[in-house]
Amino acid sequence: MSQSFETATALTPAEGGFTATLDAGWDVGGGVLNGGYLLSVVARAAVESSPHEHPVALSASYLRAAAAGPAQLSVTPGPGGRTLQHATVVLSDSGGPAVSVQATTATLVPGDSSYSVPPPAATPVEDCSSIAEHAHVAPPGVQVPGLSQRVETRLDPVTAGWALGEPSGEPVIRAWLRFADGREPDPLGLVAFADALPPTSWATGRFGWAPTVQLQVLVRALPAPGWCLVEARASEIAGGWLDEDYRIWDSTGRLVAQSRQLARAPR
Amino acid sequence: MSQSFETATALTPAEGGFTATLDAGWDVGGGVLNGGYLLSVVARAAVESSPHEHPVALSASYLRAAAAGPAQLSVTPGPGGRTLQHATVVLSDSGGPAVSVQATTATLVPGDSSYSVPPPAATPVEDCSSIAEHAHVAPPGVQVPGLSQRVETRLDPVTAGWALGEPSGEPVIRAWLRFADGREPDPLGLVAFADALPPTSWATGRFGWAPTVQLQVLVRALPAPGWCLVEARASEIAGGWLDEDYRIWDSTGRLVAQSRQLARAPR
Repeated sequence: MSQSFETATALTPAEGGFTATLDAGWDVGGGVLNGGYLLSVVARAAVESSPHEHPVALSASYLRAAAAGPAQLSVTPGPGGRTLQHATVVLSDSGGPAVSVQATTATLVPGDSSYSVPPPAATPVEDCSSIAEHAHVAPPGVQVPGLSQRVETRLDPVTAGWALGEPSGEPVIRAWLRFADGREPDPLGLVAFADALPPTSWATGRFGWAPTVQLQVLVRALPAPGWCLVEARASEIAGGWLDEDYRIWDSTGRLVAQSRQLARAPR
Repeated sequence: MSQSFETATALTPAEGGFTATLDAGWDVGGGVLNGGYLLSVVARAAVESSPHEHPVALSASYLRAAAAGPAQLSVTPGPGGRTLQHATVVLSDSGGPAVSVQATTATLVPGDSSYSVPPPAATPVEDCSSIAEHAHVAPPGVQVPGLSQRVETRLDPVTAGWALGEPSGEPVIRAWLRFADGREPDPLGLVAFADALPPTSWATGRFGWAPTVQLQVLVRALPAPGWCLVEARASEIAGGWLDEDYRIWDSTGRLVAQSRQLARAPR
């Protein structure tokens, strides 16, 4: 049975923070847990330690891969006030610290943007292909990442040529995302979406794991219900390094989150 | 006399890190020190504590304004290896912690990009206007930010309508930057450039200070000598929040740094 996102990010108060049980189902292959999932557990710890409701800025250093199972979250509150609250949160497993995060929480309120960058033209979701459906017909021995069972991912065929053996050469991947468990998007969920696509280097025909070194996620607005449109784009691939720049729009076309990460590039 | 960037970021080893003397000349007005300058001091502390030469990923939470004068930098090394080294660095003044940073250092090596986003079309530097020159003719009582004396900033007139009372409405500002002291750009200098422009909200006609809450800087390549082209762009201005997305190209047109910050929007 698939755990819900709510259960997979559940926290129990403990001395100096919380404990959690990391869900092995949020893997990206090879037993490695997705960085966005780990950061959403951290974000929940930051919010539950704050007078404010939402994670608005998170910057995470991924120190080493965290193992599924028991984890500890230590929260050190920083300065705060009426507008925002700073904290540092460290997620550790039995091997020690795995993710170290600067977290800023605040309370996002409904209201219009005075400026919002419009979404890119994208293929309608009903004409996009599901990663999980492709995974179901994967040849024996090919591992299906759990992530694609937790987050429904419909790839825009315009940026999915690599999946058909025809990489575009441009490091851009676009997809519609929603939780498989029926949860509507919310600020915590957007944190999980902010690292949920395959590496954009795949679109240049270079497959392989691109481990995240540092990831910043900004949550900009309360998302409307429905599918989110996510576009990931690399700007520079060189010297063994790759960036991934995510922009996430809600079903009304409003920009609701942004992320940028530095990762090691697949060889 | 104007201090050099080298002097303004100089460190003295101390128990658990370093001491520094923050240069009052790097202000953005009202005695507030520029966030990019503060982060370059932190980056230098990270590099001098690391087996690696360059800051490649820095994420800073700005807890409160740091005062000019004596400062302490406490460095806590994280995991590291042949490729990179993690650390957390806290910059404090006499009032306590002011900037808390996740820092990753590595050694950037010369070499071509396998993908690099090209620079935008920009007005040639000789046809751009200098912020400092404008400042020299500022009316009595109008404060000239020290930053514009430390970093030569030539605004592209295409995105500088706001300086002439004709804001474009699009939150984009483009400029050529170099150090006024003759220093060529380098990874440490790029950190200072990554927050050196006026808030892009000025281009929408909303003037005022936009204090940085959290800033991530990625240094992607060793910059060539000469002017750097910097483009800052906001994607969402809403609910009292603003993002600023910087991309920095060197004189050869290669992307050498990126930054993104969440800031409080001017009212």
